[in-house]
Amino acid sequence: MRNIKLTVAYDGTAYHGFQRQTNALGIQQVLEDRLAKVFGHEFRIHMAGRTDAGVHAYGQVVNFKTTGTIPVERIAIASRSLLPYDIVITNAEEVPDDFDAQFSAVSKIYVYKIYQQTIPNPFWRNLVWTIPHTLDVAAMQQAAQIIVGTHDFSSFRASGGPPGSPVRTIMSAECELHNNILELSFWGNGFLYHMVRNLTGSLVNVGLGKYSIDKFKFILDQRDRKKAGITAPAQGLYLKEVRY
Amino acid sequence: MRNIKLTVAYDGTAYHGFQRQTNALGIQQVLEDRLAKVFGHEFRIHMAGRTDAGVHAYGQVVNFKTTGTIPVERIAIASRSLLPYDIVITNAEEVPDDFDAQFSAVSKIYVYKIYQQTIPNPFWRNLVWTIPHTLDVAAMQQAAQIIVGTHDFSSFRASGGPPGSPVRTIMSAECELHNNILELSFWGNGFLYHMVRNLTGSLVNVGLGKYSIDKFKFILDQRDRKKAGITAPAQGLYLKEVRY
Repeated sequence: MRNIKLTVAYDGTAYHGFQRQTNALGIQQVLEDRLAKVFGHEFRIHMAGRTDAGVHAYGQVVNFKTTGTIPVERIAIASRSLLPYDIVITNAEEVPDDFDAQFSAVSKIYVYKIYQQTIPNPFWRNLVWTIPHTLDVAAMQQAAQIIVGTHDFSSFRASGGPPGSPVRTIMSAECELHNNILELSFWGNGFLYHMVRNLTGSLVNVGLGKYSIDKFKFILDQRDRKKAGITAPAQGLYLKEVRY
Repeated sequence: MRNIKLTVAYDGTAYHGFQRQTNALGIQQVLEDRLAKVFGHEFRIHMAGRTDAGVHAYGQVVNFKTTGTIPVERIAIASRSLLPYDIVITNAEEVPDDFDAQFSAVSKIYVYKIYQQTIPNPFWRNLVWTIPHTLDVAAMQQAAQIIVGTHDFSSFRASGGPPGSPVRTIMSAECELHNNILELSFWGNGFLYHMVRNLTGSLVNVGLGKYSIDKFKFILDQRDRKKAGITAPAQGLYLKEVRY
């Protein structure tokens, strides 16, 4: 059995998240159903991380074992005509037998995109969070540095996720303008349920002047979700990269 | 009666073109139906130019006469909650009684977007023409200069459009890379049916090395649609601006 690692980009707008579900279409189901034809048998993929409904990915990673004989350099091309336009395999490689997309992951990078405009852009409606205010990016960048390092992120953890330690290590957190889009990027060894969207909601409050930087630090220190700001909407979030 | 001019941006993906139709949803119908609530009566809009199914606009222009009393500076905001996310009014102003969005137009700018990549971008699938080859942009730019000036564009006119002279004046035609997107922009006093998409199809043949620059000139001179290249797909085309 070969162990195949795929990197997948997708526009999550049309799907109910990544994971296979009973009553709604997840991206996992599309990949498994369509790729069965490429590999000649059914299989279950392991994913690096679930993404919620409406969340996107540039670099989701999955792996699976296969008896299929298609050369790895043919997989992306062979998949193209079978997959819908909003799911694209960007890379395929054969990996050692013990590689697991989830458990072998060392770190992940998420990006959250914000469009600061009173007039929404009709082309970006499902791809950014449009905020009709100008945010103080320098203050957001300063606040973001507070989360760098190892912290208890209970204040930014949504209920409903898997149990486990609320401690995570953030290697970098950056708020930068790229053309007209404010990009918040978070590189960490792992993320709690809704953690990036919850961090973004509170950082936006800093950008709006609703929170001082001290207040943002106070919220982190409280370890209490009720103290923090809103959950940023799903459509601005992208799983950018999984590192192994 | 006030004469109101609106500038409208839209993602044309979900619509069967701009014009109101009997059996399919046009953007005109959405605007007329939804904006009737803003102005307190039904009306018919005049549009600067029809766009086909799947074609987009940054700056479509429409006008209509109204007895409605809403101040112009309130129109865009009042419309936002009534219009779907993929249609946005970006400007509203009161214009002289004899202004007509179509007949008062002096020139228009269309942009055609091409993404040169073997791996499609799932976020741009409805917004660009993806070509899995690297195009010779310098050759395309050189060929595009041949259409600048006043010419008979019969070679680039589709059947099925309104009758009339095939002569149009192109003020500028540019092929430029913006980040990873090749943008072809055409500024002219008017455009024949499918003219921008037909010009783009033949310019892409120049970029692929299928046509020499002399061959492109020969095609223009032939005044025969059968001599030219394919019609570029709708989803890469944008009505960028209408000038008055």
